[in-house]
Amino acid sequence: MRQFVLIGHDVPTDPDFSLDDLAGGAGRLDALCRSITAAFVTSHGIREDVRVHLIAQDEYTITFDGSELRRLNPDERSTAALVRTALEHREDAIGALPAEPSPGVELYRRGFEATLEAIADDGPIVQLHEDGDAIADVRPEALADAVFVLSDHRDFTDEEAGLLEEYADRRLRLGPQLLHADQAITIAHHYLDTAGYERF
Amino acid sequence: MRQFVLIGHDVPTDPDFSLDDLAGGAGRLDALCRSITAAFVTSHGIREDVRVHLIAQDEYTITFDGSELRRLNPDERSTAALVRTALEHREDAIGALPAEPSPGVELYRRGFEATLEAIADDGPIVQLHEDGDAIADVRPEALADAVFVLSDHRDFTDEEAGLLEEYADRRLRLGPQLLHADQAITIAHHYLDTAGYERF
Repeated sequence: MRQFVLIGHDVPTDPDFSLDDLAGGAGRLDALCRSITAAFVTSHGIREDVRVHLIAQDEYTITFDGSELRRLNPDERSTAALVRTALEHREDAIGALPAEPSPGVELYRRGFEATLEAIADDGPIVQLHEDGDAIADVRPEALADAVFVLSDHRDFTDEEAGLLEEYADRRLRLGPQLLHADQAITIAHHYLDTAGYERF
Repeated sequence: MRQFVLIGHDVPTDPDFSLDDLAGGAGRLDALCRSITAAFVTSHGIREDVRVHLIAQDEYTITFDGSELRRLNPDERSTAALVRTALEHREDAIGALPAEPSPGVELYRRGFEATLEAIADDGPIVQLHEDGDAIADVRPEALADAVFVLSDHRDFTDEEAGLLEEYADRRLRLGPQLLHADQAITIAHHYLDTAGYERF
């Protein structure tokens, strides 16, 4: 299984935002929605063996499970509606028990560190970062069950960077261009999809 | 220069559509907007050496030039607004002269074949298609000035396929997964960005 942890520094923690202003009033939720769909959608379906954990301001974690998701469309707006529905159920998340707002979506009352702790044993934790080593030097097989951690339009905070010093097994860079998180996810998938391919 | 030709089979040819329903009433313009931004945006800027040609129902071609574009944001909605503004100026496109609705955007009164003809000498024309040869077998240097042709959520029509038989120099596939056009563009960029890299 491949997993992606998306840190949303400005993403709303209550559902009182408009789907018509995702890039503005909703804390760049547009970008995070593109990252969620990049992790799951292919031309004709959904990658079932993927999980995405969206950290909302270190307060909630919304987990999407590809094996149970229904009706994830590739557009920003419908994905943002899934996030909004999850936040509408935030009072149902009590202690370690998540709210289950829709199929394949769970909302936990926990932030970045608790989420890292919960998935730390699932596979190598990989921080995607411009100062990392080249992913091309890593055998794709070593990343088959990787947990990729990405920040949104802001850089990792000092606290997040400190946690990643502790938890991350690798810090990797995908290529020479600095890309948006959704583009990075598309390329990480492609790198793993093409394991074993030679190239010029 | 890298160029991308996006065939929009259902994209509106008049500006009377709502930015709140891009995935529905606007003929999946959401997907085409993601393709436009995938072609241009990086984390901190715009790829200046890129052009995108959006074919609207074989009637108009909207050309975006990275060296002159201003304010291309990565979200679907603001890109769709650029397309809508271009269509509002469609009466200004007369004969071979384009309308120039905003910096870096031109609207031509021409369809797929006339656009192919206009750019056929710019570089190799490459049809991205699931039945193509593996791009990994092609030296990236041979694609440095490629014109990549992609269809939207529909397959190429028989007429488009016939034109591509005539014009395209190669038919290539990017990897084992069938992806959306915007994801394919991200990977094509990455393949060319990492020319010369070895990988496991």
